[in-house]
Amino acid sequence: MNDTPVPFTEEDYAARMTRAARDAAETGLAGLLITPGPDLTWLCGYHPATTERLTLLVLTPGSEPRLLVPSLERPDAEAAPCADAVRISDWRDGQDPYAAATGLLLPNGRYGVADTTWAIHLLGLQEALPLTTYRPLSVVLPLLRAVKDDHEVARLASAAAAADAVYEEILAVRFTGRRESEVAADLARLLHEQGHSQVVTVVSSGRNSANPHHRTGERTLKKGDMVILDFGGLKDGYASHLTRTVHVGEPAEEESTVHDVVRTTQQAAYESVAPGVTCQEVDRRARRLIEDAGYGEYAAEPTGHGIGVTTHEPPYLTEREETFLVPGMCLSMGPEVRLPGRFGVRIADVVTCTADGGRRLNATDRGMAIVA
Amino acid sequence: MNDTPVPFTEEDYAARMTRAARDAAETGLAGLLITPGPDLTWLCGYHPATTERLTLLVLTPGSEPRLLVPSLERPDAEAAPCADAVRISDWRDGQDPYAAATGLLLPNGRYGVADTTWAIHLLGLQEALPLTTYRPLSVVLPLLRAVKDDHEVARLASAAAAADAVYEEILAVRFTGRRESEVAADLARLLHEQGHSQVVTVVSSGRNSANPHHRTGERTLKKGDMVILDFGGLKDGYASHLTRTVHVGEPAEEESTVHDVVRTTQQAAYESVAPGVTCQEVDRRARRLIEDAGYGEYAAEPTGHGIGVTTHEPPYLTEREETFLVPGMCLSMGPEVRLPGRFGVRIADVVTCTADGGRRLNATDRGMAIVA
Repeated sequence: MNDTPVPFTEEDYAARMTRAARDAAETGLAGLLITPGPDLTWLCGYHPATTERLTLLVLTPGSEPRLLVPSLERPDAEAAPCADAVRISDWRDGQDPYAAATGLLLPNGRYGVADTTWAIHLLGLQEALPLTTYRPLSVVLPLLRAVKDDHEVARLASAAAAADAVYEEILAVRFTGRRESEVAADLARLLHEQGHSQVVTVVSSGRNSANPHHRTGERTLKKGDMVILDFGGLKDGYASHLTRTVHVGEPAEEESTVHDVVRTTQQAAYESVAPGVTCQEVDRRARRLIEDAGYGEYAAEPTGHGIGVTTHEPPYLTEREETFLVPGMCLSMGPEVRLPGRFGVRIADVVTCTADGGRRLNATDRGMAIVA
Repeated sequence: MNDTPVPFTEEDYAARMTRAARDAAETGLAGLLITPGPDLTWLCGYHPATTERLTLLVLTPGSEPRLLVPSLERPDAEAAPCADAVRISDWRDGQDPYAAATGLLLPNGRYGVADTTWAIHLLGLQEALPLTTYRPLSVVLPLLRAVKDDHEVARLASAAAAADAVYEEILAVRFTGRRESEVAADLARLLHEQGHSQVVTVVSSGRNSANPHHRTGERTLKKGDMVILDFGGLKDGYASHLTRTVHVGEPAEEESTVHDVVRTTQQAAYESVAPGVTCQEVDRRARRLIEDAGYGEYAAEPTGHGIGVTTHEPPYLTEREETFLVPGMCLSMGPEVRLPGRFGVRIADVVTCTADGGRRLNATDRGMAIVA
């Protein structure tokens, strides 16, 4: 595949940091505190390992971004694509990193802090600056990363195309007589071959397909099984997430009926994507179709969720989410019906919202493929 | 390899939880709060994904352990090996998990909290119970997991044997003309073949070997290179960590000299392991040998650190660590000399402390192998 992504530039990262600081100010925060994880990767293009050694990006409205790093990792930070857009300082082994951070924070500031920041670091900051207060970033700025620019959408499209290619290849493998774990390993291998650096694969067969929280097991696949293939991961830093439900041999009538209901629902949910529509409306429309078909009580999960540098992120397509869709939002849309003790069907694609409505990033067929 | 590990039993986990709660009481804590991560795995044998959904083990001295889980994950928790030793409760999507946790905590309790607990969870607990206070587990109970029982040592020995086998195999591959990243990929593949589920591999060649924080790069290996092979990961939940320094073709005189110094130092550090010896003493003995050889200023890193369900954990073999070694402690011992801009040597083995002194878990040769 010829899809080397367009690199994000220092200007891209500077713009993200400026916007984040401005959004923080608008919600009454003194700033944002970001430790290694998806937020730091997105804001800076810097992704050191998450460890007990403090790395901290401090975004203060109207001030230059500051990045505090362990001195041993300073060369890595200086090589990060955001390096010229942040002022880097360091602390040495033996020094107190939280004391080093105090100079970058308001002593009584109210800060948004990355959700995945380790307790050891948050407690260190709280102890060093007892009058500071903290709120989780996902609570104060849930939509910080929700609207993607064109290059981000291109990366999600590239990851989706890779997942599509994996699906086409998996249809040719043998299912009958092999275990869920073997098919899952095939999916993982194919995702790696298609350029993924992290992969998650779940294969749920027969009665297992009725359990939305099944994790791939050792069940042997046999003729007559519904099989949900739910897989994805990260390619060039952006997530793929594709779900298709296939059948080993010819399906029974209700299996086809339920598959049709889910497929029709997925299509309707996709068609409802447009600027100004709320997440709640998309979810309601999907649920109503499943209810009308008589399967309402078996549609357990949200209709979908945002996707970007993580596989699951805001906004969520749920009854409670009143967020308006805007162009650039990217969603994993996967309605499902799970009939306890019997079988389940899920179909999920990644869709981006454009000015003209939804655009699918996955292009592979959504019909119930028959596998051998 | 015929090394299926002896499973840990419910009694093992119950004993760990009881000991942890007792240790907590002895340090004046109301209890311990553990979220998914190595501490939960070690205490319970339960290792769900770390997510924004709260999973919380509450250990209160004198009370039954309590495990709060998302209702959707309750079946997984009930299948965990500790299930009969804990009282499981759950919270449902839409409920406030922190409100659900309040019933398990003293409203003004002082708790030890797992270091890697996400900020979103700690902030949720702090908001639900404003009079509670928290300290990082590694600060209040640094040695909680430090002393291994026989079955744990057996798992570390099995992981070490796997790493040894990988080292023997890597000596046969071609080094000259290939890139660091290619040799690192070979190591990763071999570790997986030897039963590792997670792997970390670092290959540092030529001048890169002088940088203790080098991460495998695209440098091409050539005759005359020192090459540090630093690798390991997790096998059956326990860590391996092996470091050997090899040479492409015949070494120069100073290269052999430095390798001898490091090898002698590693041997001396190993021989100094015994019950009642402090970590500081082990580190001092190693440093003195390197200093006496004239390389004192180039011995940057700690002489070693604990190893168990994580690759790096307390106790640390450093100047500041006055912890006494006791039987069952397991250490990754890896002195090193790094000559900036020139080359470096590191040799690391896993060693366990027994009543009779140290016992190496790695058995492979520590000489400077010549590779092609």
